[in-house]
Amino acid sequence: MDRTIYSADHEDFRASCAAFLDKHARPFSEEFVSAKAFPREFWTAAGAEGFLGLEIPEEFGGAGAGDFRFNAVLAEELSKITAALASCVGIHTDIATPYIVDLGTQEQKERWLPGCADGTILTAIGMTEPSGGSDLAALRTTAVRDGDQWVINGSKTFITNGFSADLVLTAVRTSPEKGAKGITLFAIEATDEGFSRGRKLDKVGQEESDTAELFFENVRVGDDRVIGEVDRGFIYMMERLPQERLSCAVSNVAHAKQILLETIQYCHDRKAFGQSIGSLQHNKFLLAELVTQIEVAEAYVDAAVAAHAQRTLTSTDAAKAKWWSSQVQNEVLDHCVQLHGGYGFMNEYRVARAWRDARVTKIWAGSNEIMKELIGRDLGF
Amino acid sequence: MDRTIYSADHEDFRASCAAFLDKHARPFSEEFVSAKAFPREFWTAAGAEGFLGLEIPEEFGGAGAGDFRFNAVLAEELSKITAALASCVGIHTDIATPYIVDLGTQEQKERWLPGCADGTILTAIGMTEPSGGSDLAALRTTAVRDGDQWVINGSKTFITNGFSADLVLTAVRTSPEKGAKGITLFAIEATDEGFSRGRKLDKVGQEESDTAELFFENVRVGDDRVIGEVDRGFIYMMERLPQERLSCAVSNVAHAKQILLETIQYCHDRKAFGQSIGSLQHNKFLLAELVTQIEVAEAYVDAAVAAHAQRTLTSTDAAKAKWWSSQVQNEVLDHCVQLHGGYGFMNEYRVARAWRDARVTKIWAGSNEIMKELIGRDLGF
Amino acid sequence: MDRTIYSADHEDFRASCAAFLDKHARPFSEEFVSAKAFPREFWTAAGAEGFLGLEIPEEFGGAGAGDFRFNAVLAEELSKITAALASCVGIHTDIATPYIVDLGTQEQKERWLPGCADGTILTAIGMTEPSGGSDLAALRTTAVRDGDQWVINGSKTFITNGFSADLVLTAVRTSPEKGAKGITLFAIEATDEGFSRGRKLDKVGQEESDTAELFFENVRVGDDRVIGEVDRGFIYMMERLPQERLSCAVSNVAHAKQILLETIQYCHDRKAFGQSIGSLQHNKFLLAELVTQIEVAEAYVDAAVAAHAQRTLTSTDAAKAKWWSSQVQNEVLDHCVQLHGGYGFMNEYRVARAWRDARVTKIWAGSNEIMKELIGRDLGF
Amino acid sequence: MDRTIYSADHEDFRASCAAFLDKHARPFSEEFVSAKAFPREFWTAAGAEGFLGLEIPEEFGGAGAGDFRFNAVLAEELSKITAALASCVGIHTDIATPYIVDLGTQEQKERWLPGCADGTILTAIGMTEPSGGSDLAALRTTAVRDGDQWVINGSKTFITNGFSADLVLTAVRTSPEKGAKGITLFAIEATDEGFSRGRKLDKVGQEESDTAELFFENVRVGDDRVIGEVDRGFIYMMERLPQERLSCAVSNVAHAKQILLETIQYCHDRKAFGQSIGSLQHNKFLLAELVTQIEVAEAYVDAAVAAHAQRTLTSTDAAKAKWWSSQVQNEVLDHCVQLHGGYGFMNEYRVARAWRDARVTKIWAGSNEIMKELIGRDLGF
Repeated sequence: MDRTIYSADHEDFRASCAAFLDKHARPFSEEFVSAKAFPREFWTAAGAEGFLGLEIPEEFGGAGAGDFRFNAVLAEELSKITAALASCVGIHTDIATPYIVDLGTQEQKERWLPGCADGTILTAIGMTEPSGGSDLAALRTTAVRDGDQWVINGSKTFITNGFSADLVLTAVRTSPEKGAKGITLFAIEATDEGFSRGRKLDKVGQEESDTAELFFENVRVGDDRVIGEVDRGFIYMMERLPQERLSCAVSNVAHAKQILLETIQYCHDRKAFGQSIGSLQHNKFLLAELVTQIEVAEAYVDAAVAAHAQRTLTSTDAAKAKWWSSQVQNEVLDHCVQLHGGYGFMNEYRVARAWRDARVTKIWAGSNEIMKELIGRDLGF
Repeated sequence: MDRTIYSADHEDFRASCAAFLDKHARPFSEEFVSAKAFPREFWTAAGAEGFLGLEIPEEFGGAGAGDFRFNAVLAEELSKITAALASCVGIHTDIATPYIVDLGTQEQKERWLPGCADGTILTAIGMTEPSGGSDLAALRTTAVRDGDQWVINGSKTFITNGFSADLVLTAVRTSPEKGAKGITLFAIEATDEGFSRGRKLDKVGQEESDTAELFFENVRVGDDRVIGEVDRGFIYMMERLPQERLSCAVSNVAHAKQILLETIQYCHDRKAFGQSIGSLQHNKFLLAELVTQIEVAEAYVDAAVAAHAQRTLTSTDAAKAKWWSSQVQNEVLDHCVQLHGGYGFMNEYRVARAWRDARVTKIWAGSNEIMKELIGRDLGF
Repeated sequence: MDRTIYSADHEDFRASCAAFLDKHARPFSEEFVSAKAFPREFWTAAGAEGFLGLEIPEEFGGAGAGDFRFNAVLAEELSKITAALASCVGIHTDIATPYIVDLGTQEQKERWLPGCADGTILTAIGMTEPSGGSDLAALRTTAVRDGDQWVINGSKTFITNGFSADLVLTAVRTSPEKGAKGITLFAIEATDEGFSRGRKLDKVGQEESDTAELFFENVRVGDDRVIGEVDRGFIYMMERLPQERLSCAVSNVAHAKQILLETIQYCHDRKAFGQSIGSLQHNKFLLAELVTQIEVAEAYVDAAVAAHAQRTLTSTDAAKAKWWSSQVQNEVLDHCVQLHGGYGFMNEYRVARAWRDARVTKIWAGSNEIMKELIGRDLGF
Repeated sequence: MDRTIYSADHEDFRASCAAFLDKHARPFSEEFVSAKAFPREFWTAAGAEGFLGLEIPEEFGGAGAGDFRFNAVLAEELSKITAALASCVGIHTDIATPYIVDLGTQEQKERWLPGCADGTILTAIGMTEPSGGSDLAALRTTAVRDGDQWVINGSKTFITNGFSADLVLTAVRTSPEKGAKGITLFAIEATDEGFSRGRKLDKVGQEESDTAELFFENVRVGDDRVIGEVDRGFIYMMERLPQERLSCAVSNVAHAKQILLETIQYCHDRKAFGQSIGSLQHNKFLLAELVTQIEVAEAYVDAAVAAHAQRTLTSTDAAKAKWWSSQVQNEVLDHCVQLHGGYGFMNEYRVARAWRDARVTKIWAGSNEIMKELIGRDLGF
């Protein structure tokens, strides 16, 4: 079925995203993997063409689009290249910078947003800790008041963009006794004394996404680094979960869909037993199932994107979109590998990397188990 | 998420459907099962309130709505009562009568449509044969020309509404050598000499839907009983498949959704080990999964309904909606049974009947395997 | 692979079981369903040929075989006829009478075992209650001491053989404050004053198995009705769980295997698109999967039977056999229905009844969720 | 349940395998991965302790055990370290050298077997070709007779041990017109002129297993390199398939079982929300399921090993063991990754590598689709 949520404007934007990526990303995807990072030139090129500032007001160098469907189009086009590209850009544009846009002071906006928009300031979100996983109540990174400063100690792990980020929005416990209500968001700059990074983590997939541990050892910052109000960090994070989950969901579906389309082509081209392997009934039925699975998931995610563009998407529905899409993505890609036979196990085939890259989507951004917990609670249990 | 395809008009219509069914169907559902049929009074009551003629032009006593979303609303409300109610009414309103509306002569329309609209003429579709299953090329019921008449011989099976129908639109081979291009649709009246019916079939579920074998033994009819043109029956049937499949899909989702909602309520009410059974984490996660599955399927079917209301739904996309929704329906209901424990195996519980009733949706209207074959062909295989 | 646990003696016994059932059960299976019971003549015929007393010592009229493999052979052959036959006989031979054999006084044995062996005394187990489901700690049927008698009040539900049983081994709370350690087993005779039965329950499947609610209203019995010691009922029941679960597992696999073999034959005989439907690659692969699934499950259950014959089977491993086999059984049968197309939904086809009959095996004898709970505990969680 | 197929002798052998691997493999597993190979010292150490010659007669330096259960024990212990270790050793001991043992001339045995036993001659099997995948009829590597020599041209791909092998048993077309009956096995030595290897393939997992393409460009060999008779290669390969598939099956189950045990331990150690994560009911039930799945698969594979030790295992039953075990292995490992949360995506965790390593088992040694085709044929379809 034709998708109905995108207008001609969105499709024009899609074409310009695709053209940009054909020039600046697709030819270099092997290099990105070898470098275990996207080079800064990629970011600044993306910034120069306006792709990084969709949510940033025009006065700070962004497009101020205010329509999440543009974000979704960008996420889809990035995902068609690689999952890592979508996640690294998405963390910056859809997840981190919106905190500054929505909660920042005028001074904070002036300090950081222009760089966020032009790609000279790359952002990350510091939430997960080694000991805690998905359990925010267990947050151990602390900020202690010392005069008019805060002294921050602790560590974070699994931080996407962590190795390259210039600015890390970091969840820190400011009121030890207040549980979730004692968490504050701090903007930590990479140049802050006491801030350091571990090695790039050696991951199962998405090698080009630099993921790192971050360490805070007596990092001293002033109130100008507090994002929003003290002790309200948890609420701020909760408020932004629908967008984070939805951003993941959009990428999950687009990523799997792209690889499925390539696999269908492969099944036309590859012959065995005297015919296209896609004509063997088992494969034919399987491809029919996979196409259905993707289109069904896409319909739900599209409905969620439309709702979010209207600001009506609930956190629970975003959770549904997130877990379902990642489940579908992983199932579809596993079958796509199988349809490639031995080549599906070779890294030079896109399907092989895609399969590895996708595995994390059932885990990150709140594991699928956490999503189900939340949906179950919403049912009153 | 809020569903977006229905307007206030559709919701008003939904309310009137629900009110009608609360009065005329819900209190009698056990009786319907015992009788293995819906009594004629049900049909004429439905006709009197306009529910049977959504697609019939006003001049022939219908509503002439011309908006499939009304059909979908009706199918949903019927499905909330029982699956059989939705299938028996749907066969009449969405599948059989449209042939006459679209292809009938003025005389044919005058003869049958008013009765179709007011419930005095109940229709069925005679397509499946004992030997052939889903393979239309194997059709063995024949019509042989004798003077200006046709002499029809053969039999049909698994005919919904078969035992009660007054008018059966029957697929008959008129040109033996022409395969699918030699099939013609005939309107057979129950009073035609040589027409008879076998016993009501003893089914796993949907007992209140009268399903029967039909026999044609030298049934003689004139050209006034040919629907559309001779030898074009296969094309006519193909053209109507999207609506048939979509009608099934709408019912499948609405049926499972209703039982799931009742099961969620049961999981609130039923206690074990000192708490609501829905609060046990395994059940909680399971219910979260089921709710997601239903809502995702609903999003796809809704998109298909919207497309069909615009006359753009393809046969392939309808096939996707049909097989996916029936798969989801059966999976969800199986879990709903399990959540009821031993009560789920007792016919007095709605979930038990619903589970049995649903089993056929993966088989009928083109089995799910046929759907996958068609989708696979559409991919070029 | 050839099964290795059965010797020539077991296979001889299998042949005599099969011969008996071909004469006394197979020709009457429709009658059993209509009657919603197995007639007493069936039981006495089975008793006369020694099938009911495998575990009963010779002095009380049994075979005293003391080798569970004979029980397993009988369960398999019964399951090949219908699941209900296996469950009703199994309750009597494998589950109820062993309590008397193992725990009964000489007087109790003399009173009941000869009748258990010859089919004149049919037994049932009264464990489940309407409010409690699988939660034994919630047992509400009570026995209160009054002089040298016990006065029993309460009710039981889902009792297999409940409508016909002459003797019901009933779990009753004797010490209200002692939880699981306050339960005693009583032997209630159908003629005891105050004992009554509800109607036969109207079930999704296994209609020929009479399942009923039982009511105890001031039933007065003496100490001669206590099985084993007072307040040790829970332990007795726990000790017998491996055999109960294993008995279920044996039947589950044999039942599904038989129907699968019949379905394979059907797929040879039924033609579509010019070939056996089993030759269509999708079906061919599916049948290959189902055969594998059954044989794999059978290997595990066989290993469990061999272990139990050696008295080494743990309760946890029996739980694994029970849940896994019932899951496999239900999955396999669902596919078998689908392979039959529309006929799979017709009760006159064995596959249709088998599918309905099997649904309860995931629920009864400790639901599969309870099995997983137990296995999880055994892992230390 | 206790496994019953292994005696004290086998368990003694298991202990010596484990001791050897603890010393020579476990401490170096990271090095093996970095080197993308097992160093020759590993092989010669294994040879020195007798692990490479289980099937080689004593006169040629082997153990001449003639009991496949020893091979199975070795495969299990290797799999507990890594899947690649099991596959590389298994190719050499269970799959390649047996051809020489069974079919070789006295001269061939003297030439190669001592080296196979002591680890100085490492073997590989050259079957798969770039164009052909699992379709042996499409074999394109040819040997043309030239005087008393054969001139071999062609290429092979996905060859395990390919980069290091000293001796490659290569399937070559000798009679172009005779299809499967025109294939001959040649023993190609790495030093043969015209033989070369491509780079080590960059695989999704099992990086330490050197997998390579092999090229044959006018390789000239005499009749002393023909294994068995000319044109009978296909039959020889077919005869050895049960052992190859079974060897895979044994490794698949042992590999997944080991990682599952480590994951269970992890679920005891890792805390979240104030308890072991394994105590969360969802995880607890999941672990119960995984343990069951593994033990059920193990029971079937054990039965197959016992049958093979008696020389009665059929090719079809081996196919069942192969596809089922690889399916279970992959499903179990995917859940094990999920249970590790973010750490499951980090290569430093064994579960992450195991997940990647396992993916190929559904593809190689005859893809699971080929296995199902064979099983389906055995059913008569």
